[in-house]
Amino acid sequence: MLVVMRHGATQDDIHRVVTIIEDMGYQARPMPGKERTTIGLVGNDGRVDGTRFSALPGVLEIIHITKPYKQVSREWKRASTVIDLGEGIRIGGKEVVVMAGPCSVENEQQILSAAHAVRSAGAAVLRAGAFKPRSSPYSFQGLGEPGLKLLAKVRAETGLLIITEAIDPATLDQVAEVADIVQIGARNMQNYALLRRAGQCRRPVLVKRGLSATIQEWLLSAEYILAEGNPNVILCERGVRGFDTATRNLFDLSAIPLVHGLSHLPIVADPSHGTGRRDMVTPMARAAVAAGADGLLIEVHPSPDHALSDGAQSLFPKQFATLMDEARAIAATIGRGMAKCAGVPS
Amino acid sequence: MLVVMRHGATQDDIHRVVTIIEDMGYQARPMPGKERTTIGLVGNDGRVDGTRFSALPGVLEIIHITKPYKQVSREWKRASTVIDLGEGIRIGGKEVVVMAGPCSVENEQQILSAAHAVRSAGAAVLRAGAFKPRSSPYSFQGLGEPGLKLLAKVRAETGLLIITEAIDPATLDQVAEVADIVQIGARNMQNYALLRRAGQCRRPVLVKRGLSATIQEWLLSAEYILAEGNPNVILCERGVRGFDTATRNLFDLSAIPLVHGLSHLPIVADPSHGTGRRDMVTPMARAAVAAGADGLLIEVHPSPDHALSDGAQSLFPKQFATLMDEARAIAATIGRGMAKCAGVPS
Amino acid sequence: MLVVMRHGATQDDIHRVVTIIEDMGYQARPMPGKERTTIGLVGNDGRVDGTRFSALPGVLEIIHITKPYKQVSREWKRASTVIDLGEGIRIGGKEVVVMAGPCSVENEQQILSAAHAVRSAGAAVLRAGAFKPRSSPYSFQGLGEPGLKLLAKVRAETGLLIITEAIDPATLDQVAEVADIVQIGARNMQNYALLRRAGQCRRPVLVKRGLSATIQEWLLSAEYILAEGNPNVILCERGVRGFDTATRNLFDLSAIPLVHGLSHLPIVADPSHGTGRRDMVTPMARAAVAAGADGLLIEVHPSPDHALSDGAQSLFPKQFATLMDEARAIAATIGRGMAKCAGVPS
Amino acid sequence: MLVVMRHGATQDDIHRVVTIIEDMGYQARPMPGKERTTIGLVGNDGRVDGTRFSALPGVLEIIHITKPYKQVSREWKRASTVIDLGEGIRIGGKEVVVMAGPCSVENEQQILSAAHAVRSAGAAVLRAGAFKPRSSPYSFQGLGEPGLKLLAKVRAETGLLIITEAIDPATLDQVAEVADIVQIGARNMQNYALLRRAGQCRRPVLVKRGLSATIQEWLLSAEYILAEGNPNVILCERGVRGFDTATRNLFDLSAIPLVHGLSHLPIVADPSHGTGRRDMVTPMARAAVAAGADGLLIEVHPSPDHALSDGAQSLFPKQFATLMDEARAIAATIGRGMAKCAGVPS
Repeated sequence: MLVVMRHGATQDDIHRVVTIIEDMGYQARPMPGKERTTIGLVGNDGRVDGTRFSALPGVLEIIHITKPYKQVSREWKRASTVIDLGEGIRIGGKEVVVMAGPCSVENEQQILSAAHAVRSAGAAVLRAGAFKPRSSPYSFQGLGEPGLKLLAKVRAETGLLIITEAIDPATLDQVAEVADIVQIGARNMQNYALLRRAGQCRRPVLVKRGLSATIQEWLLSAEYILAEGNPNVILCERGVRGFDTATRNLFDLSAIPLVHGLSHLPIVADPSHGTGRRDMVTPMARAAVAAGADGLLIEVHPSPDHALSDGAQSLFPKQFATLMDEARAIAATIGRGMAKCAGVPS
Repeated sequence: MLVVMRHGATQDDIHRVVTIIEDMGYQARPMPGKERTTIGLVGNDGRVDGTRFSALPGVLEIIHITKPYKQVSREWKRASTVIDLGEGIRIGGKEVVVMAGPCSVENEQQILSAAHAVRSAGAAVLRAGAFKPRSSPYSFQGLGEPGLKLLAKVRAETGLLIITEAIDPATLDQVAEVADIVQIGARNMQNYALLRRAGQCRRPVLVKRGLSATIQEWLLSAEYILAEGNPNVILCERGVRGFDTATRNLFDLSAIPLVHGLSHLPIVADPSHGTGRRDMVTPMARAAVAAGADGLLIEVHPSPDHALSDGAQSLFPKQFATLMDEARAIAATIGRGMAKCAGVPS
Repeated sequence: MLVVMRHGATQDDIHRVVTIIEDMGYQARPMPGKERTTIGLVGNDGRVDGTRFSALPGVLEIIHITKPYKQVSREWKRASTVIDLGEGIRIGGKEVVVMAGPCSVENEQQILSAAHAVRSAGAAVLRAGAFKPRSSPYSFQGLGEPGLKLLAKVRAETGLLIITEAIDPATLDQVAEVADIVQIGARNMQNYALLRRAGQCRRPVLVKRGLSATIQEWLLSAEYILAEGNPNVILCERGVRGFDTATRNLFDLSAIPLVHGLSHLPIVADPSHGTGRRDMVTPMARAAVAAGADGLLIEVHPSPDHALSDGAQSLFPKQFATLMDEARAIAATIGRGMAKCAGVPS
Repeated sequence: MLVVMRHGATQDDIHRVVTIIEDMGYQARPMPGKERTTIGLVGNDGRVDGTRFSALPGVLEIIHITKPYKQVSREWKRASTVIDLGEGIRIGGKEVVVMAGPCSVENEQQILSAAHAVRSAGAAVLRAGAFKPRSSPYSFQGLGEPGLKLLAKVRAETGLLIITEAIDPATLDQVAEVADIVQIGARNMQNYALLRRAGQCRRPVLVKRGLSATIQEWLLSAEYILAEGNPNVILCERGVRGFDTATRNLFDLSAIPLVHGLSHLPIVADPSHGTGRRDMVTPMARAAVAAGADGLLIEVHPSPDHALSDGAQSLFPKQFATLMDEARAIAATIGRGMAKCAGVPS
């Protein structure tokens, strides 16, 4: 950490900062510059709260050098984390893992039909929500527990892995019994009680980026899970809040290479929520693979025009099959393959 | 709701939309325009999910006319809600209610000292966190239950009302036993399990605006609480995420008159989090009162340079006393007074 | 400037940075930390381009300590700049200067009527555009030169000072002949050819903040004008681009105390563009005065429902008179008065 | 256009709106709904200023249905515009056009060396600035006219087409004499005097997206150029302002498919400015091609560590050659090729 003094700060001002740093048990290194003195704090283990300094007399600003996250950082662990999801599917390595399915489980026929469609097109994981967080208290909130049971049935019948969302610490364990991957949604990215519970479960956890989360805040939320002892975290870019209402969100695809540089964790992209428009899902899914995403999260519905939620951004099964072909071809150009559900002919 | 058809949409496209609207039990009113046909959906009770239409052939866009919130709307209830907080303090009426105190309860001496300071300057409510949501798992997370006990003690000793934050459905009831106002923080604005539990408690609830929440999303979060049967909701503007790192947040003061127009609920302003800088708290607190805020939430610490959190944005007690004098004078220019803690000489 | 090396940077990496700094004629001060080495560049006169370092091997990030602006900074000139606008009106001192009038000059009767209305309510300066920058090529673009002539006539007849916008280097001098203050609009905040021309004219220049300009970029645009020899610059906050379409812009009122801390230049607020809604102009104008603004820019139209532009955010003359009364009362609470047009009875 | 009346608007309020619409020469169609009446304005040719209505008594909001742009719209012209850039290079069709080179022309050796490097890697157009808009008046502003002369020389020597920026109406014609494509920079996207002049020149014009421009505002800026008679406009996404300082800008790649849907004009992507970081340029360039971009704008410098500007985001020539290979492979997967400079062996 670096304390930058104002032009004109007095020796007393500088001395006060040095004393506080030393009182905290760190070393202070004043460095007089042409216009200002800066004081380095050496020995910061990431726990120093810079706000203790920022309003002291003569202080201009506080600059953090050490990143506040640790275990998720590639500086901490050089090699990429490869997570075994089960059934031979691994994420974070050479293969791109596609997770597809409807926004929510609506009924047995719908979810089975969706599962067969995405499986035959080549998806390895079925996505579908049983618990749905909705902006309005009057919107469809998901089937809840019965939805989880349908997912378990589909898993047994198709061999697809399951990813589904947990929205409450009280029901997370129920979700984790059925899910191969527990999803934490964007609105809950800073719901720390939920993150802690996810850190205590034995399943891989996918953490969606919050609507206006910086990359650092997002990595810190992942850090909560690792700090509880669960190393299997997948990040998911799903669009941030932008200023243009032409799309539902602003899909920040550059998060893919950026996170790959900062962290060893796998990162996937969700172009369905990222754009909110069916006609943009396929080009942006292709782009995500080209940018190096370790997986895709895609909304597919057997009959999008009758979906209870997110119909406008759900692909028709046939569109999804085309997307899979294009994604496979692009993955090959950068030396990657697509993860396959066991028993699906290649 | 209005379905806007593309220039060149066919009669079949239009007919399909009309049929779906009628199947849903509403009336459809096609309106041919010079360039495009638009189809009105009449009878919308706020529950129609527009995404069912937006990707149909020939559809250009969906326009929502009815607001998705109801009970919080001034169209629904004309008169401003005035909430009785206890001890003769009411918010939402003529008097501005100032809630002040440290970011977190640190120990008995600190919280008592802060309470006496803000009380003697004229605050009516003591603010201080026992449970603290922090971006990093390694930061100070608050004293928890012992902190709540200290707050109860201070309440008994000073007569100040208490506002403190709940961060988990599992501990909300504990918080509500001590607090006169239960605070829902910005990061939890869309934590629906928490909002529901807050809607079931008997205390007034203050809902901070999420970091990138639109006014509509914020009102919908309040709607969750009213929908559970708790009509006593206070809104709090505390800054949104901006693009300029010169301040911690972008303090959106225009939310005050905007919310007053849309909703009957009281709204207060938190310039401490809104700006993140001590030198800006006083001018922005004055501005909030001038804009019509029903209250202020201000961080004050007996010794800001030694605060365990948010030191840089906490006022010294003396600065707070000056702020109270200025706020009182400005309130008077628009015909308002300041709520007073019982037993404090005027 | 500070070059932060990665954890694990080699001695060669560090040496390379040191050598480049010394080759540029500055001193390098390596400072080994617990986790990383940082290298200070001493002697930076504000012209070092940090991008030369940020992609070198072993470099993690570049941190700027010296601000890139100079002449506009309060570190450079401690005392607030007070600008003499003519006719005894001065801005930047004790008195708040209100500039009011219609969005654009439409015809003689309209502009005269507006001028008399704002003058009798107590405004000191008439605002009205002759050249209008419009998003669409098909919108009304202002009367141009004939509009300037009408403004000159109104100035002679009423004694009001004139502020009007220049949108092109080729016509700026024409504008400066009539205007007491030349306005640079938000869209042109980084039109450097226009800023340079404004720096060469003899009139005070008001620079509106760009739609997504940081405070630093805004001050740099003012610096362009001072660098050409014109010290009389007024800054104007008029709202930035936000994510919520409930208001036209996000009015960033905290820019007032922030700029007052960083710069000696006067700063005014424009709540008409800042909110885009008539019902919010008065509360936000009050708030601006309470926050310490040195002036206000307010749209007033004799008949807003028939305005050729910006009708929805223009006040009726009677509303403006009320606003002036409230603003005056609030100014008094912080020890300020209102500048008055010569010859207007107090 | 649609005028939405408040719940509770009176018959007089509704009548007033109807009368004004009819006075303007359009038809009014009131449509009573369950909660509110809406009034359609039929016959809108895109010139109706909705602000005339939005503050009338009883009016809740104004909804625009007709888009304000015309000539750039795909509704207006169905077929994609293919622009002949000269030397057999066409943009907007099957071939992806890569424009590469240094941020600015520094000297003859540097620009020639850069040109040979990008040509041999397969670029068709050389990018380099002679006039540079810079945030600070003290930064390097480009070589100006001598820079243009060097570009003309390089063009003659290498056969590469030239794209370079115009920043002032007064010097645009000079630029257009040398350039095969005249670039309008992001900061000048709403510099209407400059756009008009660009519309009068005979060269194709590339319009970069403004830092916080909506897609609609961007298309309106292109409309200014078409409205002056120049149909050859290329759009360029180069990142918008985001809230996360981890990258220089937020690269909005979804603009590619979005613009392709709304407009017939070609659109290219600039991942160098879009990310500001060398290590992210290649993955995001691949992603842009996968998303369907009609071209790329890439910064390449013979010696990035010694660049006078934008060094950190400039590729080394060898990195650029690799990028070209990857981009070519990805283009092939979606049925596209790469435009080639005449005389370069394939």
